Amino acid sequence: MYFASDNCGPALPSVMQAVMDANDGYQPSYGDDALMGEVRALIRTQFEAPDAAVYLVATGTAANSLALSTLAQPWQTVFCTPLAHINTDECHAPEFFTGGSKLSLVGASDKMTPDQLRAAIERWTYGDVHVSQRGPVSLTQVTEMGHVYSLKELAALTGLAKTYRLPVHMDGARFANALAALECTPAEMTWRAGIDVLSFGGTKNGCMGVEAVIFFDPKHAWEFELRRKRAAHLFSKHRYLSAQMLGYLKDGTWRQMAARANAACARLAAGLRDAPGAVLQNDPQANMIFATLPRAAHQRLHDAGAVYGLFAPLKGDDAKEALPMRLVCDWSITDDLIDRFLDILTA
Amino acid sequence: MYFASDNCGPALPSVMQAVMDANDGYQPSYGDDALMGEVRALIRTQFEAPDAAVYLVATGTAANSLALSTLAQPWQTVFCTPLAHINTDECHAPEFFTGGSKLSLVGASDKMTPDQLRAAIERWTYGDVHVSQRGPVSLTQVTEMGHVYSLKELAALTGLAKTYRLPVHMDGARFANALAALECTPAEMTWRAGIDVLSFGGTKNGCMGVEAVIFFDPKHAWEFELRRKRAAHLFSKHRYLSAQMLGYLKDGTWRQMAARANAACARLAAGLRDAPGAVLQNDPQANMIFATLPRAAHQRLHDAGAVYGLFAPLKGDDAKEALPMRLVCDWSITDDLIDRFLDILTA
Amino acid sequence: MYFASDNCGPALPSVMQAVMDANDGYQPSYGDDALMGEVRALIRTQFEAPDAAVYLVATGTAANSLALSTLAQPWQTVFCTPLAHINTDECHAPEFFTGGSKLSLVGASDKMTPDQLRAAIERWTYGDVHVSQRGPVSLTQVTEMGHVYSLKELAALTGLAKTYRLPVHMDGARFANALAALECTPAEMTWRAGIDVLSFGGTKNGCMGVEAVIFFDPKHAWEFELRRKRAAHLFSKHRYLSAQMLGYLKDGTWRQMAARANAACARLAAGLRDAPGAVLQNDPQANMIFATLPRAAHQRLHDAGAVYGLFAPLKGDDAKEALPMRLVCDWSITDDLIDRFLDILTA
Amino acid sequence: MYFASDNCGPALPSVMQAVMDANDGYQPSYGDDALMGEVRALIRTQFEAPDAAVYLVATGTAANSLALSTLAQPWQTVFCTPLAHINTDECHAPEFFTGGSKLSLVGASDKMTPDQLRAAIERWTYGDVHVSQRGPVSLTQVTEMGHVYSLKELAALTGLAKTYRLPVHMDGARFANALAALECTPAEMTWRAGIDVLSFGGTKNGCMGVEAVIFFDPKHAWEFELRRKRAAHLFSKHRYLSAQMLGYLKDGTWRQMAARANAACARLAAGLRDAPGAVLQNDPQANMIFATLPRAAHQRLHDAGAVYGLFAPLKGDDAKEALPMRLVCDWSITDDLIDRFLDILTA
Repeated sequence: MYFASDNCGPALPSVMQAVMDANDGYQPSYGDDALMGEVRALIRTQFEAPDAAVYLVATGTAANSLALSTLAQPWQTVFCTPLAHINTDECHAPEFFTGGSKLSLVGASDKMTPDQLRAAIERWTYGDVHVSQRGPVSLTQVTEMGHVYSLKELAALTGLAKTYRLPVHMDGARFANALAALECTPAEMTWRAGIDVLSFGGTKNGCMGVEAVIFFDPKHAWEFELRRKRAAHLFSKHRYLSAQMLGYLKDGTWRQMAARANAACARLAAGLRDAPGAVLQNDPQANMIFATLPRAAHQRLHDAGAVYGLFAPLKGDDAKEALPMRLVCDWSITDDLIDRFLDILTA
Repeated sequence: MYFASDNCGPALPSVMQAVMDANDGYQPSYGDDALMGEVRALIRTQFEAPDAAVYLVATGTAANSLALSTLAQPWQTVFCTPLAHINTDECHAPEFFTGGSKLSLVGASDKMTPDQLRAAIERWTYGDVHVSQRGPVSLTQVTEMGHVYSLKELAALTGLAKTYRLPVHMDGARFANALAALECTPAEMTWRAGIDVLSFGGTKNGCMGVEAVIFFDPKHAWEFELRRKRAAHLFSKHRYLSAQMLGYLKDGTWRQMAARANAACARLAAGLRDAPGAVLQNDPQANMIFATLPRAAHQRLHDAGAVYGLFAPLKGDDAKEALPMRLVCDWSITDDLIDRFLDILTA
Repeated sequence: MYFASDNCGPALPSVMQAVMDANDGYQPSYGDDALMGEVRALIRTQFEAPDAAVYLVATGTAANSLALSTLAQPWQTVFCTPLAHINTDECHAPEFFTGGSKLSLVGASDKMTPDQLRAAIERWTYGDVHVSQRGPVSLTQVTEMGHVYSLKELAALTGLAKTYRLPVHMDGARFANALAALECTPAEMTWRAGIDVLSFGGTKNGCMGVEAVIFFDPKHAWEFELRRKRAAHLFSKHRYLSAQMLGYLKDGTWRQMAARANAACARLAAGLRDAPGAVLQNDPQANMIFATLPRAAHQRLHDAGAVYGLFAPLKGDDAKEALPMRLVCDWSITDDLIDRFLDILTA
Repeated sequence: MYFASDNCGPALPSVMQAVMDANDGYQPSYGDDALMGEVRALIRTQFEAPDAAVYLVATGTAANSLALSTLAQPWQTVFCTPLAHINTDECHAPEFFTGGSKLSLVGASDKMTPDQLRAAIERWTYGDVHVSQRGPVSLTQVTEMGHVYSLKELAALTGLAKTYRLPVHMDGARFANALAALECTPAEMTWRAGIDVLSFGGTKNGCMGVEAVIFFDPKHAWEFELRRKRAAHLFSKHRYLSAQMLGYLKDGTWRQMAARANAACARLAAGLRDAPGAVLQNDPQANMIFATLPRAAHQRLHDAGAVYGLFAPLKGDDAKEALPMRLVCDWSITDDLIDRFLDILTA
């Protein structure tokens, strides 16, 4: 019963098999491996983006920071929500890679509205040398609270950004889960919705450690290659990144696995809604649930070996006190585990 | 007949097996996996360094740059040779990670002498705010020309650095090959020889992509952890880095494989010395040969499918012109391949 | 009638005279001039801080950014208000000098309370490698809205910072005006109130361009000297910075001029309170007034040649619409000018 | 008898007068002062460059670092000589401002030849992501050894740079002295000779502290303005920078003063050539002499109060030992002082 994060589970069999298969003979290094050609072609096809520049790195923070540093000058600001991973969980990697950009926080939570974005942009006067200069907008899809921007919401935000001539980045660490939630195509959720650059997550949805950065307009391609190398994120034995991504992409595995994780999450959420004392804190649209449970319920789960994000001390006098929690379902969670978890709650 | 680089060959069976074995169940992320505990213990034991701080990253450039940035303030200079990988092959990663350090080049080639190091250090006046401030010394072992510093040479250089209170870093991308060449212990070639921080290479000698950074004095440990995260080099699914390193370290595999690669290189060098028209350019002490061959010989090798570093255009009128080349032997090169290569030369 | 900013007026006669006097003969460069010795001694005396490290730079942004970069590691955050000059008016200089620090915004306006500061600090979990690491607190005195922290308010904030072991910086671009408002000693408003480093403004209160950075604990002195040189803020002909500061400090000129500016501001504020249609937006405790006036009044002032900060278009249909403005009094504003300004309003 | 440096002497009367004259009434801040308009027009006229973008900063290091950071991406290298001020005397300011550029050293002394430059450029392979990327060439005129590139030499170097599409920067901290030596026009020594950006020194030749950065192609103007502000080098009371530059430029004062300094230097050099035991180490083409004198002569000069750069301990047993020295003549050195200096030598 492990719901701590989708970065704690095992990798997909198809990913592992592809890595094993790749471990044969010699291959040119530093991204010139034959497998990378296949990856590039597959992504271009699946995203209906024949000109896209496609790169692989090993961590989500690298994908985000390299992408944003390619879009933002050091004196420009990145617009994101206060809860954006780039703001809360990357130890200033965006500021480091950009050479000193500022994150301008939009709204008060995990999603932004066009009005909030406009207010944040207008906060910095155009053409005034003293202030933060307006730069890229970064949207997280799935958000850090488990919400999903609709295609309409995305279009409204990117449309507004375009009126200010600002590029738009999508942090898609859980891109597949969002896609499964919206039941749309990769193109519809990205370039057709006005996204310029995508951090396309693989790690959380079943890879060992690989993310793609996809530039739908390849004009920044060479700069990105230099930035990736300079940041020590260009792998010499690159074939093992390529292989992971191949095993992930082939036959639509990535979408199937995300759908499975979302379904597991829906099952868990449904159970929680019925569980005594449980209160959902978000509307779990993908694979993450934020909820509260009474301390006593947490204690029972803990004793049974359940692991998840608990944001308060377990020890305490008040057995009924509602303690906040996060539950994440990855591709490998089974119905049995979920039911066992729920049984403990309703026991 | 692939001698292009030791980053083009396959990974070791023991490494791949360890990765497969690690792909089971749930593990805490970001370096808190159980395997990392084993790695830490193994490295401390094998290096006779019970207090060492041990970290894993995925690329050699990350290991070097993170280690150096922990040792050098932005206004301090790093002393290294002109041919050091950090100077020639990392696209300013050391400058980026340190926030603007300068590399002060020592000597004229791949190895430095104490006299050359002293001259370089004395170049920058102590206590003068205008100049580059003296910072760490970085030594590459095996050097980029395939040479190995003797323990005595290392001690002389680190001793000199200590008289200036400068820390010493070792770029050990081919650490195992150097150790095999010197037939000494890891401790003797590092902290006993005055090395403060080691980039301990795994990738070139049979891993998919993992390097350890070892601080023999752990005082910088927390700073390093922050730097690693900030540079996006902390893996969420860290277990796969740990597993590689485990498969590499266990049962001394790493030392056996390096010895094998060095032996292959010696066989190849012996053959080249006898081959008509071949001239060795270095004294190959580990697994790298620099040599020249007549153009006609290169053409024959090329036609037979041999791949290696050729530093001049193959096409040309003068069949006898000596063209420079680099040959690298990794753990997987067989005697048969070497003999076939030599046969073509003497044909 | 020039109320646009205290950086638009002339320099003090005493400052200009000191500069002329300094222009004689030869002087060692780069801060080794004899006048700097006098400056250091005067500041140490006036601040009752015999061990303080004292440095001069030419701009307020340089003073703030160099001071903060000495206190904050790149992975640490600086706590300041949203309206802090370092956040709104320095084009990412703090982020640049620190190598990528983040500004964590405290409260919602120009002053922070201990509760707001505690909430902001607690926002970043101690010891978690993923988040922004807690760093220095920066307080602006006089604030950007013309308010002044009382000694008690300062002590409460610095006391809280100390419980978290965080250093405290004061942006004192208008330090003299705050001192005049509080009628206390420099020591009381700085190190006795828990301030560790002060940006001590000279420019706005009558110098051509000079600010002191004062470290009450000199442990960072050498690092600051390196940072100042590396940022190109060490003047070769440093005597002209020293001379300005001398002309400013001698005989308490700086405090008299600030008192004069504050008095002028009080006269202007009193007049505004009585003026038809004028509404004060702040409680002007030093030399800055935020207010609104009907458009028609702005038009009359404009026609008469008055200059000040007008934060809305002058042109417009509604003559009665209240348009926001900022008025700043520097040392050179005369009662006559103020009365003339007020006469226009009441005309 | 002060020959230590041209940054130890007084400022020109015309510069001081202009500063005094500027200290009247109110002026818009941050470069919008009326005087800056005059400066811009004067420089454009004197350089025959009607489109040039012209900016003022207060230090030579700021001028160089801001100019170079505008030309060089962080992954690009700057080509300069080992003795270039940007390499030896700016405490990594170029590396800091560029965000981690590397200085690639050309030749072995203070001047570079086209062959040396070509070799340095060819050192870094075009289009290889691993290496330092080719960036701007920086030439110092007058060099740090008192030499002057001829117009033909400049054209050869800039012509070579253009074949590689590399921009060329000139560090003209002693631009006026070079111009006086070559007896050419400012245009001939800059844009007509292929210079793209000039650091135009004022400080060493009689200002308190002001340098212009002149972009002959204004395409980088806005970026430079942002970089200047972000580096805290935009002055609020900018008029005092403008005034200095005006007093320097008006009526050709700057050229007359440089000619005077060069003439003084020539007189001193001639005397040294005749002085017993003196050996010139450079061919002093502008206002700097490098020479050796016997220790005894140094002692006599020292006892008489002469001050200059002595690069060895004065104390020593061997009275005849030749000790190296540097002598710089600024605009204020008189024939009397020089003759007195020479008299001591020949005494």
